[in-house]
Amino acid sequence: MPDDETHKAEMQALKAEQRRRVTEAGDPDRGLVLVHTGDGKGKSSSAFGVIIRALGWGHRVGVVQFIKGDWPTGEKQFFDKLGGQVVWRTMGEGFTWDTQDRTRDTRTAQAALAVAAEMLRSGEHDLVVLDEINIALQFDYVTVEAVLAALEARHIRTSVILTGRNAKPEIMDYADLVSEMREVKHPFQAGIKAQRGLDF
Amino acid sequence: MPDDETHKAEMQALKAEQRRRVTEAGDPDRGLVLVHTGDGKGKSSSAFGVIIRALGWGHRVGVVQFIKGDWPTGEKQFFDKLGGQVVWRTMGEGFTWDTQDRTRDTRTAQAALAVAAEMLRSGEHDLVVLDEINIALQFDYVTVEAVLAALEARHIRTSVILTGRNAKPEIMDYADLVSEMREVKHPFQAGIKAQRGLDF
Repeated sequence: MPDDETHKAEMQALKAEQRRRVTEAGDPDRGLVLVHTGDGKGKSSSAFGVIIRALGWGHRVGVVQFIKGDWPTGEKQFFDKLGGQVVWRTMGEGFTWDTQDRTRDTRTAQAALAVAAEMLRSGEHDLVVLDEINIALQFDYVTVEAVLAALEARHIRTSVILTGRNAKPEIMDYADLVSEMREVKHPFQAGIKAQRGLDF
Repeated sequence: MPDDETHKAEMQALKAEQRRRVTEAGDPDRGLVLVHTGDGKGKSSSAFGVIIRALGWGHRVGVVQFIKGDWPTGEKQFFDKLGGQVVWRTMGEGFTWDTQDRTRDTRTAQAALAVAAEMLRSGEHDLVVLDEINIALQFDYVTVEAVLAALEARHIRTSVILTGRNAKPEIMDYADLVSEMREVKHPFQAGIKAQRGLDF
């Protein structure tokens, strides 16, 4: 009976081998892991745009929002109206500087990750968006190891988009694609407020 | 009677003054000009995501696609199913390296700009997306002056998103917001093909 550490190392090697074989086989339907990060706009909105593409092809989509609370957003209202085509779970309770309660934020983020892990594993979704999960990682509400484990255990056909600034290097290493949104010029600098239908 | 050059200079000064007054008045509903550029993914998809936000608030949206031809895309199929909430005009006939016909491409792009200018002017849309217009500018199918004139003559409440790599400096100067999508890591490099529901 191997000890825990040995067992863990063996399992990791096995997973790495499985992953290598799948990649080399070049399964054209293998789900990809995409990261949208950077300090610019477009991280979440481009994920919503990819959702539209997926829905256009009849794919099934899941969304878990890690940070955003229950306030109305255009995207939420739009997808609600669509009915069952998108499973949408808003788990966050607001930005961390709003709640100022680290214990609650940690509990919320971990509950969100549990929901996300089940979505990824189930094979019921062609695309799963983990919105603002990078923020939850940045504040150590969830661990890199737990997120990587959930990604690794996903159904082979399920693609994932992880959004949020300051993506962890381990997550970017694991990803198939990393896009960085860079802010060249921003209206808030010019004193223009966030606008309905553009920014939320 | 002033000559053409003097008249043009006077008109430009007048427009600049009008624009300055509007900006300083800080009209919170003033439509913004956004540019999505860079060599990374997410330029068009984040525009589609912003469309979703706008629709969620009941806004009216117009889209003019300058380059993409008539092949099926997820976004087109999705928005077609929505019915009249989005006015969608695909004017392009494919990428320039497909058509290899500069005269035709120029004619097509200029027709697209005419449609776009009318959408912008009409006040019938809260948001107008000019998809891949930066490519049409890059290849000189339309002039910077013509695009700036269309933006300048837009209805005060209409926001615009111009997408495509290699945005012209004059367009970025004019814009309220410029986001650059940078490619950190791309699956094509690893031999993974473009996927339905993610890339188109």
